[in-house]
Amino acid sequence: MPDEAVPDAVDLIRTKRDGGTLADADIRWLIAAYTDGRIADEQMSAMAMAIFFRGLQPAELRAWTDAMVASGRRLDLSAVPAPTVDKHSTGGVGDKVSLILAPLVASCGAAVPQLSGRGLGHTGGTLDKLEAIPGWRAGLSASEFVDMLSTVGCVICAAGADLAPADRKLYALRDVTGTVESIPLIASSIMSKKIAEGTDALVLDVKVGSGAFMRERAAARELAQTMVRLGSEHSVRTTALLTAMDVPLGRAVGNAVEVAESVEVLRGGGPDDLIAVTLELAREMLALAGFDAAQADHDPAAALADGRAFAKYREMIAGQGGDPDAPLPAAAHAQVVPAAADGWLRHLDALAVGTAAWRLGAGRARKEDTVSAGAGVICLAKPGERVQQGQPLLELRTDEPARFGRAMQALDGGIEIGAEPPVLGPPVLERIG
Amino acid sequence: MPDEAVPDAVDLIRTKRDGGTLADADIRWLIAAYTDGRIADEQMSAMAMAIFFRGLQPAELRAWTDAMVASGRRLDLSAVPAPTVDKHSTGGVGDKVSLILAPLVASCGAAVPQLSGRGLGHTGGTLDKLEAIPGWRAGLSASEFVDMLSTVGCVICAAGADLAPADRKLYALRDVTGTVESIPLIASSIMSKKIAEGTDALVLDVKVGSGAFMRERAAARELAQTMVRLGSEHSVRTTALLTAMDVPLGRAVGNAVEVAESVEVLRGGGPDDLIAVTLELAREMLALAGFDAAQADHDPAAALADGRAFAKYREMIAGQGGDPDAPLPAAAHAQVVPAAADGWLRHLDALAVGTAAWRLGAGRARKEDTVSAGAGVICLAKPGERVQQGQPLLELRTDEPARFGRAMQALDGGIEIGAEPPVLGPPVLERIG
Repeated sequence: MPDEAVPDAVDLIRTKRDGGTLADADIRWLIAAYTDGRIADEQMSAMAMAIFFRGLQPAELRAWTDAMVASGRRLDLSAVPAPTVDKHSTGGVGDKVSLILAPLVASCGAAVPQLSGRGLGHTGGTLDKLEAIPGWRAGLSASEFVDMLSTVGCVICAAGADLAPADRKLYALRDVTGTVESIPLIASSIMSKKIAEGTDALVLDVKVGSGAFMRERAAARELAQTMVRLGSEHSVRTTALLTAMDVPLGRAVGNAVEVAESVEVLRGGGPDDLIAVTLELAREMLALAGFDAAQADHDPAAALADGRAFAKYREMIAGQGGDPDAPLPAAAHAQVVPAAADGWLRHLDALAVGTAAWRLGAGRARKEDTVSAGAGVICLAKPGERVQQGQPLLELRTDEPARFGRAMQALDGGIEIGAEPPVLGPPVLERIG
Repeated sequence: MPDEAVPDAVDLIRTKRDGGTLADADIRWLIAAYTDGRIADEQMSAMAMAIFFRGLQPAELRAWTDAMVASGRRLDLSAVPAPTVDKHSTGGVGDKVSLILAPLVASCGAAVPQLSGRGLGHTGGTLDKLEAIPGWRAGLSASEFVDMLSTVGCVICAAGADLAPADRKLYALRDVTGTVESIPLIASSIMSKKIAEGTDALVLDVKVGSGAFMRERAAARELAQTMVRLGSEHSVRTTALLTAMDVPLGRAVGNAVEVAESVEVLRGGGPDDLIAVTLELAREMLALAGFDAAQADHDPAAALADGRAFAKYREMIAGQGGDPDAPLPAAAHAQVVPAAADGWLRHLDALAVGTAAWRLGAGRARKEDTVSAGAGVICLAKPGERVQQGQPLLELRTDEPARFGRAMQALDGGIEIGAEPPVLGPPVLERIG
């Protein structure tokens, strides 16, 4: 005989499918049962697709995120002497901001606990980049993590398997079932990990444009607002910046090449757009952590100029076994892409360049693939510069010359040269918080 | 490196999810790959949910149905001397029409090849009902199936595992993922089996109302139109009747009790509504098979009256090992439900009565459950009759008296007695073809 007292996965899927609202207890049961295997993957993927179409109400999303956090452990950072503040980026091409920002903000007084990820597709991952540094290791225990925060003041490492395991399982499922692109599912995935990480405050860098996950500003804004609300509901002070991702950030796209460019910025140099985005995020983080960036001790521009940020970076790398003085791996082969005409470089498409770097070996198609440390693309010119026919625009680097052809295909249509200079927008588009 | 030449399940899911159209070749690949396990259940359930929301265009649905038929064998009924015509019902409460119709139509000259199913939930299955007959077996080989059609002229049996195996697998998946209620998926599931069965013609009995899968007439009409179109696209002459399913059909709901009522009709008696629906379907089938029901030899009313249909029924049962003269199993316990007041019986809800019969043991909650042959409900009164307080309205039958309580709960609110007589609609609502 049917027993109607037990919650039923099919009933919950049908409720969401038909536009109904799931009760908190149903959501808790669903996530817990999925995590421990009582709900099958095929049921959860149907639910995820129903959520893609129907969304989640704010109360549902809060319960969903709670349940994801509750599926694992929540770190306790109360032993860290400084206020903690983290940054999360939704991912972009040439987005090496975390490598600069963590030591920069730590050098200005806040502690930066950053659990980070690896890249997939055309956007790189912070851990992949740092792993280009000889000796550096991404895997730390929870106590090593807290130690780094307490002594160095910043840490970037991989999230442990016990942090929001429901998200780990659900994300892998969404990846193979066409259910990634759902704002509530993206928001709960990101925020459940950040809440479990234990940070006091969080700044979100939501990228918008051709090279970003969110191509439309309205969708990026909705995602940012959703995450900011989830943060405040879980006592994590959260704000967001929408930043431009139509063109690669900075000039380097890859792993070792992005580490080198980050070091350039940390030593007081580097490309303007990268510096601007990094400083804006740093000021936002310091403000959330309660510091007044107008004071010299807490001014990130000063910390870049006077070497404090770079010293903190060296400490952070060395604290995780890396040698900040070791030469970075270099790719064996390089090839330049010349300008096809005289004129203004009007556009250099982020998706095209990111895909080219991926094809050269810097990225992975599947999460079990390895990445090449040396591969990548150097943008020798950026939009807004005048170029002459034959002048090198890009330098492609790879360990396997057979990859050049497919990288060139990826660039097809991604470079625009014209008679008029382009109208360039600001790197930071909007603040939400 | 990613290989873009191989079709990718995730791309196809995203295409459908975003409202795009799947190419014929993609659909063929999808169904074939799902059938042999290259596409995982969690991918197919996400696709099914995307189809729930986005639908399938006529060309997509045709390709989908083709691919389901092509996943297995298509029976060849060319050796059967008479034109073949089948009937499929979408399922209702007390719907024993197949048991009468197959021998009735065969006795009027057409051959009826009926591959049938078992019940799930509140609607019974034809095979479950026939299995109440001592000795009768549902499993026939393909050659036994053709032999029965050629010699007796009708056969009702289980579909072999080699008939539309993609549908078998997909239906089981949809059942546990909340993706049953999709008109294109329902239509392709039903029609792929009927096309593979090899029948020349098909009449669809699409039930509408509280006890039916389709509660709304507009949705039932859309399903019927979709299936009629699929039939004609696959050279199966197909028409549909929409028939009422707000009240149980006939008076018996269960297994043995429905066999007994079918025999009553075959012997020239039985309830008016059941006779009316059966005769209308029989005429439709005979017309599709090319017979003129105005001629006495092909007139189903005459065949019921003069014993030809009953004789054919006995042949059909005996041909599959059943003893048409053996006493049918009876439940050990009975209990009546009395009228709560004097007045007109205005409504006797099909879903309530079907659920009560299920709870008494006549139906199953999961496909691996067994059913009780004797359990069920007898409707001692039907809407439109005057009743007196205390007069028995229903007789509940079960092997396990503990089930009476839950059956009574299911009936709660399902019986309406009032001062005014009800306005009763016709049993056949609409013809589509």
